[in-house]
Amino acid sequence: MDRSTRTVRSEHQAQGARPGPASLPLPPHRLRRAVAIVPIARPLAYAQAHASRFCKELMALIRFPTVSAQPEHAADLVDCARWLADHLRGIGLEHAQVSRTEGHPLVYADWLHAAGKPTVLIYGHYDVQPADPLDQWQTPPFQPAIRGLYLYGRGASDDKGQFFAHLKAIDAYLRTTGSLPTNVKVILEGEEEIGSASLLAFARQHPEALAADVAVVSDTSIPAPDRPALTYALRGSLSLELEVRGLRGDVHSGTYGGAVREPLQALCAILDGLYARGGCITIRGFYGRVRLPDPDERAYLVGVGPTNEEILAGAGASRGWGEPGFTLYESTTLRPSLSVHGISGGYQGPGIKTVIPAIAAAKLSFRLVPDQEPDEVDRLFRQHIARTIPPGVRCTVRTLDAARPVVMERGHPALRAAEVAYRRGFGASPVFLRSGGTIPVVSTLQNALGISTVLMGLALADDAKHGPNERFYLPNLANGIRTSIYFLVEVGSGVRRHA
Amino acid sequence: MDRSTRTVRSEHQAQGARPGPASLPLPPHRLRRAVAIVPIARPLAYAQAHASRFCKELMALIRFPTVSAQPEHAADLVDCARWLADHLRGIGLEHAQVSRTEGHPLVYADWLHAAGKPTVLIYGHYDVQPADPLDQWQTPPFQPAIRGLYLYGRGASDDKGQFFAHLKAIDAYLRTTGSLPTNVKVILEGEEEIGSASLLAFARQHPEALAADVAVVSDTSIPAPDRPALTYALRGSLSLELEVRGLRGDVHSGTYGGAVREPLQALCAILDGLYARGGCITIRGFYGRVRLPDPDERAYLVGVGPTNEEILAGAGASRGWGEPGFTLYESTTLRPSLSVHGISGGYQGPGIKTVIPAIAAAKLSFRLVPDQEPDEVDRLFRQHIARTIPPGVRCTVRTLDAARPVVMERGHPALRAAEVAYRRGFGASPVFLRSGGTIPVVSTLQNALGISTVLMGLALADDAKHGPNERFYLPNLANGIRTSIYFLVEVGSGVRRHA
Repeated sequence: MDRSTRTVRSEHQAQGARPGPASLPLPPHRLRRAVAIVPIARPLAYAQAHASRFCKELMALIRFPTVSAQPEHAADLVDCARWLADHLRGIGLEHAQVSRTEGHPLVYADWLHAAGKPTVLIYGHYDVQPADPLDQWQTPPFQPAIRGLYLYGRGASDDKGQFFAHLKAIDAYLRTTGSLPTNVKVILEGEEEIGSASLLAFARQHPEALAADVAVVSDTSIPAPDRPALTYALRGSLSLELEVRGLRGDVHSGTYGGAVREPLQALCAILDGLYARGGCITIRGFYGRVRLPDPDERAYLVGVGPTNEEILAGAGASRGWGEPGFTLYESTTLRPSLSVHGISGGYQGPGIKTVIPAIAAAKLSFRLVPDQEPDEVDRLFRQHIARTIPPGVRCTVRTLDAARPVVMERGHPALRAAEVAYRRGFGASPVFLRSGGTIPVVSTLQNALGISTVLMGLALADDAKHGPNERFYLPNLANGIRTSIYFLVEVGSGVRRHA
Repeated sequence: MDRSTRTVRSEHQAQGARPGPASLPLPPHRLRRAVAIVPIARPLAYAQAHASRFCKELMALIRFPTVSAQPEHAADLVDCARWLADHLRGIGLEHAQVSRTEGHPLVYADWLHAAGKPTVLIYGHYDVQPADPLDQWQTPPFQPAIRGLYLYGRGASDDKGQFFAHLKAIDAYLRTTGSLPTNVKVILEGEEEIGSASLLAFARQHPEALAADVAVVSDTSIPAPDRPALTYALRGSLSLELEVRGLRGDVHSGTYGGAVREPLQALCAILDGLYARGGCITIRGFYGRVRLPDPDERAYLVGVGPTNEEILAGAGASRGWGEPGFTLYESTTLRPSLSVHGISGGYQGPGIKTVIPAIAAAKLSFRLVPDQEPDEVDRLFRQHIARTIPPGVRCTVRTLDAARPVVMERGHPALRAAEVAYRRGFGASPVFLRSGGTIPVVSTLQNALGISTVLMGLALADDAKHGPNERFYLPNLANGIRTSIYFLVEVGSGVRRHA
């Protein structure tokens, strides 16, 4: 799959579609002409006229307390999935269905009557993060409320509000024209906040069901309403657990302190040894496959991405740390990294308990960039541990999950279509950014299914995703529906499948 | 206080009382002659005749669920303290009283009519460890039960059974002779398992109340019923918490991984940097005041102490680690050490949470040996952290508690008295051992109050102190009562106050 993606990428480069360093060329005229021949004014007008109803429908959707991490909400996820399937049927999509999984259900629907046109896969997730701390919410998390231009509620922006914009674009288009400008599949999952296991399994087992020319995922943020952004690269990830043992059980530090290698000490030595003094990762061969983008792209990214100062301010850090020779934005997007998320072992309550813990464990994850492969990094890590394990202790490495890095050529027609759509929907050209984060679903769509995936963020960076008083900026709902309408039209006019 | 102790020690050495390397001389003839003139046969016979009643009384004491760590048991500790005060009064002690503290009550009583004789302070603690896991007890922890030669129940050996032997020695002696061979004070606390804060405060505020020539603490173990042991040295301790911060809050590892020094990484670097490759502690000046005992004592300890193999088997470790040039028994008793008891910070649940935690903290403690001072080591540690703190993070050091190391000259008359008492009570000469552990109360008695303290263990090493099915070997109760009777007689015959 990856090889075919790479081939496509090379073809684009051969056609001279590579963008310049500091700005991106407009899409080919062919696409712009195509827009003119569709009856786009009617769905746009309909969306504007029915904004109030759309908002009420979204509020109904937010009322389902679809907290995927809390088993007591399992029935709420089923109820929400059924509501969504009904809604998809109601707006004119076909084959609307709720699919049971080992976890929470998947919701699917499609409209595949645009003969000869590409297929857009619209992805969203109807599950939400837990709502606590409840006492910090101004209004209850599952009783959506409008204050000013914001709609407040758990899931308002992550992700109910965002994917709902696409549903309403379809609604408006089908209602006013009786058809869609391109083929559409919709897949909505209920496990994004807990790892997307069921959807990833479904994608492996039924790749044909999700087959599409382009996928659109609205589950990211844009810097400001007048500053949309298209994310065209994500880092991959490899999450591991490292466990160190060396004693029969917890032993008394009075009796044994000074005689034995303590697992927690050894774990610290191992973790510290993963970094060289300057911040590089010491694992042999780790950087071997890292491929930097060309100087033009780096210069573009430096121009549009956050400055070192902005990144440090965001983290609340006094200074940067890591590989020399890169800006911090480059370090977090173009370069791989290794973070330790938690260490367990021993006593953590108040005061002291003078025990030498028998087991110490760390959870850590690598962020990976093209062309690093999680499997290979996993192997290199295990080899590093085997080579450097302190005498007197034993180590176990467990792989928790992995996702390959994702990158789309910035000249890819799907990105061009999204660029045009944003410019028309939001009235501003998006910048093109690489993200340091990882979205496993996107990695699967792009790398395993070979579907070019556009990350079309509609939420604002300060929408308090995952926090109390999560909200969605209602003008972005309207602009998002407009953008989605333009995107469907753009795709229908030009994007072809690259598989 | 410490200086006076040291002076005493020097006097003993000047008198040629220093024991030989592999055996200890008998006490002076003066003491042995003195034994003959007291009516010791009667209390010994009484104790033997009333063993069954003594055992039932101990079972009544064990029935109080005196778990000091669990606030819901506070009233049980008060009830137990009152029961003990009544019991002390009942056996003929005077001034029996329950003293309120900020925590659990202290129980005190005395008998001070042996004019011109030394005063023995008998210490014990009536609080116990939590009893869980309850499902692993064969009989309920607070319903004492006899199976074979063992009495089972929480607190049976730690410490109710052990201090009760001394109470029954007093009981038998007073009941049969109407007096005691020496002056006696009894102090029983209810906070040993949670740090002895109230007793330590009381000792600072009312040193005169505890003033004595010798203290006896039965809260340790002996290797076997026919192999008693006298512990004549304890390591001190200094417990610290080290906290590392460097971010505004937990941040996302996708967004910031690779750009900033992570507090948990920095903590690992600091902790690993505290040890040199071979296992020595790298803090400047840390070993400056460490005073090794003379070669004779080292040779004696090597002969009587556990072997490297026994220590490794006890810890379940495959090999030793630490300072070169010492046996593992020496490393754990004659040399200081540093253990990490727990690390907190970040995510420790199932799976992974890709957060860079803003705060990382470790609980650690030093074990200290003569002539290291906790205050000085505390200062050296803080200087080391200030000198080695990684750029980009801030560190906070908190001192949790401290206790100075304790050592008695092996030729001290109180130890000699205990040696004779054990030989007569148990029918076997005790070995003299240094322990790597720390007992803050002993440090206070010995170092702050200047009271030479004998650690007269009566429990067996496999009595499951702190675990389920804790027990006390009933022949050790009988032998312990006999040993205590002999000890009071020995002290009454020869030990003089060294203050």
